[in-house]
Amino acid sequence: MISGKNYIGKNLSSQGKITFKTFNPKTNTENKTVFTEASDQEIEETVVLAKEAFKKYKNISGKKKSDFLNAIANEILDLGDTLLQIYSQESGLNIDRAISERGRTIWQLRMFADLVKEGSWVEATIDTANVDRKPIPKPDLRKMLFPLGPVVVFGASNFPLAYSTAGGDTAAALAAGCPVIVKSHPMHAGTGEMVSSAIIKAAEKTGMPNGVFSNLNSSGIKVGQELVKHPNIKAVGFTGSVRGGRALFDMANQRAEPIPIFAEMGSVNPVILMPKAAKQKGEEWAKTYSGSITLGSGQFCTNPGLIIGIKDDALQNFIQNLAEEIVKVEPSCMLHPNIIGNFERNKAEVSSQKGVFIKADYSNDIPKNYGRQVIITVEGDTFLKNATLHQEVFGPFSMVVQCKDKLQLLKVINNLEGQLTGTILAEKDELNQNKEVFEALQNRVGRIIYNGVPTGVEVCPSMQHGGPYPASTDSRYTAVGIHSIKRWVRPISFQNWPDELLPNELKNKNPLKILRLINNKRESKFL
Amino acid sequence: MISGKNYIGKNLSSQGKITFKTFNPKTNTENKTVFTEASDQEIEETVVLAKEAFKKYKNISGKKKSDFLNAIANEILDLGDTLLQIYSQESGLNIDRAISERGRTIWQLRMFADLVKEGSWVEATIDTANVDRKPIPKPDLRKMLFPLGPVVVFGASNFPLAYSTAGGDTAAALAAGCPVIVKSHPMHAGTGEMVSSAIIKAAEKTGMPNGVFSNLNSSGIKVGQELVKHPNIKAVGFTGSVRGGRALFDMANQRAEPIPIFAEMGSVNPVILMPKAAKQKGEEWAKTYSGSITLGSGQFCTNPGLIIGIKDDALQNFIQNLAEEIVKVEPSCMLHPNIIGNFERNKAEVSSQKGVFIKADYSNDIPKNYGRQVIITVEGDTFLKNATLHQEVFGPFSMVVQCKDKLQLLKVINNLEGQLTGTILAEKDELNQNKEVFEALQNRVGRIIYNGVPTGVEVCPSMQHGGPYPASTDSRYTAVGIHSIKRWVRPISFQNWPDELLPNELKNKNPLKILRLINNKRESKFL
Repeated sequence: MISGKNYIGKNLSSQGKITFKTFNPKTNTENKTVFTEASDQEIEETVVLAKEAFKKYKNISGKKKSDFLNAIANEILDLGDTLLQIYSQESGLNIDRAISERGRTIWQLRMFADLVKEGSWVEATIDTANVDRKPIPKPDLRKMLFPLGPVVVFGASNFPLAYSTAGGDTAAALAAGCPVIVKSHPMHAGTGEMVSSAIIKAAEKTGMPNGVFSNLNSSGIKVGQELVKHPNIKAVGFTGSVRGGRALFDMANQRAEPIPIFAEMGSVNPVILMPKAAKQKGEEWAKTYSGSITLGSGQFCTNPGLIIGIKDDALQNFIQNLAEEIVKVEPSCMLHPNIIGNFERNKAEVSSQKGVFIKADYSNDIPKNYGRQVIITVEGDTFLKNATLHQEVFGPFSMVVQCKDKLQLLKVINNLEGQLTGTILAEKDELNQNKEVFEALQNRVGRIIYNGVPTGVEVCPSMQHGGPYPASTDSRYTAVGIHSIKRWVRPISFQNWPDELLPNELKNKNPLKILRLINNKRESKFL
Repeated sequence: MISGKNYIGKNLSSQGKITFKTFNPKTNTENKTVFTEASDQEIEETVVLAKEAFKKYKNISGKKKSDFLNAIANEILDLGDTLLQIYSQESGLNIDRAISERGRTIWQLRMFADLVKEGSWVEATIDTANVDRKPIPKPDLRKMLFPLGPVVVFGASNFPLAYSTAGGDTAAALAAGCPVIVKSHPMHAGTGEMVSSAIIKAAEKTGMPNGVFSNLNSSGIKVGQELVKHPNIKAVGFTGSVRGGRALFDMANQRAEPIPIFAEMGSVNPVILMPKAAKQKGEEWAKTYSGSITLGSGQFCTNPGLIIGIKDDALQNFIQNLAEEIVKVEPSCMLHPNIIGNFERNKAEVSSQKGVFIKADYSNDIPKNYGRQVIITVEGDTFLKNATLHQEVFGPFSMVVQCKDKLQLLKVINNLEGQLTGTILAEKDELNQNKEVFEALQNRVGRIIYNGVPTGVEVCPSMQHGGPYPASTDSRYTAVGIHSIKRWVRPISFQNWPDELLPNELKNKNPLKILRLINNKRESKFL
């Protein structure tokens, strides 16, 4: 069923010489399929095809794009249990997680389908002419959002479905009207090929131009680099490490024609535990957080890797409780030997720093490739002085920073790098009395949470998933929710354009009945 | 009245050692005031003050920001004729132009004042909780746009008022809630200081924090570079050359924490003259374009520097008419000896290329620093082969490219770099029959014009001023109109946040009565 080949548009191709296999971390064995990395010539063919496809795809109606996106969702469901099994074999994640992640993928596709079918997302803006204006007549101007061109999407290791081949970035770009080339993640190349086959089927069934979607295999960084540097590519979406994201960001910006890149990268997702909350609900929060830290072996970009409090008896008790609770959690399989290798290495590096105390370290025997959870603690002074302690340890890990007072707590927050999320655990009056704390935290994050956990990224219009660097490369955009479509579009104005040649969104009669800004007033009626 | 000093917040300061004077191109003499470039220590003081000011300014209500912006407009008007005279002495532009540009500046300030007073621009988005949802409860999420932090604005040489000290970038950033540090343009440092004094007065009268605005003098590139590299600076706005803009873009992206930069740079603003229009209205267009090319000595970013047609008798006649019309226009004074020096150098370089024919060259005697208009023509083949011919010649200059057929016309359009504007001169049926021509042009520009001239950038919501690189560094934003505020803001989500601690824009009762997206429906009522 899985060929190991690249999809250049609808054609399967394997002209390259580099091959690789995926790995089952649960059985600690290689999976069978041999995948062939895309060759230079295949990359060139793919981008040429995408550029041609863009000429047609950019003019396809919202209604038809909606059919396409819904068809992708249907075709993915039609892959049935086989997809779930391959997913699990390539990630070590269990079937329940596969089902829930597939559900999220389907939901995202349908959400964008609804968005483009309705059509108001293009932000149609009209200013009508005034020929009598002095000293010069006012022209008729009409503006709306148009797709940028072919987009390259890098799949995420930790979300083989929802943030990979047909994940959030792809769904948003296809909805915008941009052809997509996926640089398939080598850890789940089989899942990627299956999902690609569903997209290709959907494209053919709904009459989309060949090249609207392609999927290229890669074992290392070369395929991705060549794609990002290619003049036909007009934007990039990436989910992964700060190191990888920054390298691509630099590449995209150093091009003769720089292109927008949205990289969702690292975050330690600081949690501020205020003294009263620690005293009154410390035990409860310790339980909740042992769950959040170990959820999915801590392999979420919103994993709470940093808990900050003010040193007192209540905080000591919280740490003790958290340490006791977290070792009760049964460890689970991590995604890949490379991921667990990095986890062990980073954990060891951070734990060996001066002034670090290990509070919990799961010590029972566990199967190979499973993640052993760890809680460490440091003083505020130590944390402020040592940048090694600020790095993300991707896995079931968290560090508690004990500040000597509120002033130091504020200093720690102000010295944090940009984050996807920040959480405050506080009693209500305590929150009210510490506005400077949440204002400082708000300044460093994309999403701020009160009395909850950062894990669990709701897919809805109000979600902001993206934050100040290095959480993401452009904090002005989100990677989750309908507004993520804005990454792949730009406004174009038409001046004194004949009505019959305008896009439907801008015609006088408003045939799509969308909401428009007309002479600076919001209206959905025609002119 | 003009001190020659820097404004570090409300304080005048001149600790630096580098001094310079502005120049009157009309009289070909230096103006009297000695300006002192900001020293390293003054730059540091300014950015520290801006960071402090941001803590207060970001929380100031839309109503109060609106008062501030309107007060700036009033204070600028209060500067009276003295401002107009200094403007004219530093730019060679006449008083009528000064009045009209001041009018545009005032209009922009009041437009942003209205926008933030009304308040819906923050795109408030609310998704309410559902505690019964399975498998996990849905949280309450609320999102809106927040200012990024201190912004550096580089004034434009060709718009001493409307795109400099209190111009579009500054007005948009202040409206967004960002403190602004202007890197004053050395060619009109006096105008800049006067306008700065108006902003400082307005800030004091309306109770804004000290440091919400600063103005630093500079004679070269050093002050700007230090500002862009400073960790306290969170975004940059620039209007100027591709070379200068690209250097700042690279600098902003190579920071440890990259920051958004919006640079509005070069454009030759291609005009496509279709055969039927050339035949039927060629004479009329020649007259109109001789005006557009020489308007303001061609010192507009939307100056039509490139006219493309298909070689036939009608195009020959058009060229002949254009050449005859353009020499009838009285040359006018250019901004500065440096500007005219560059104009003469670039004009000579382009004119001396192989295959270039000079069709018009104003030959009468003209005063020093006046711009001598030139029309040149080349064949399509020549243009395609020689990149030197693609560069912008800033001044009263235009080149007519004669393509051998429609195929070559399309090739020329597809090979153009990104542009602010593109214009099509065509009879209506001709436009209808040549969709591929306008689709190709649309793909390279931010604004597309039918039967008009690109000069004249209307300030209205439907204006897109910005285009694919190198027209600007991020085609997803505009530098003109209310939507230009989006360059300086990012969304932040609040999850399960207590209603009383939410910003007013996100509170249940909608006290500001703004339009919001509630559970994916647009509503202005309360919850």
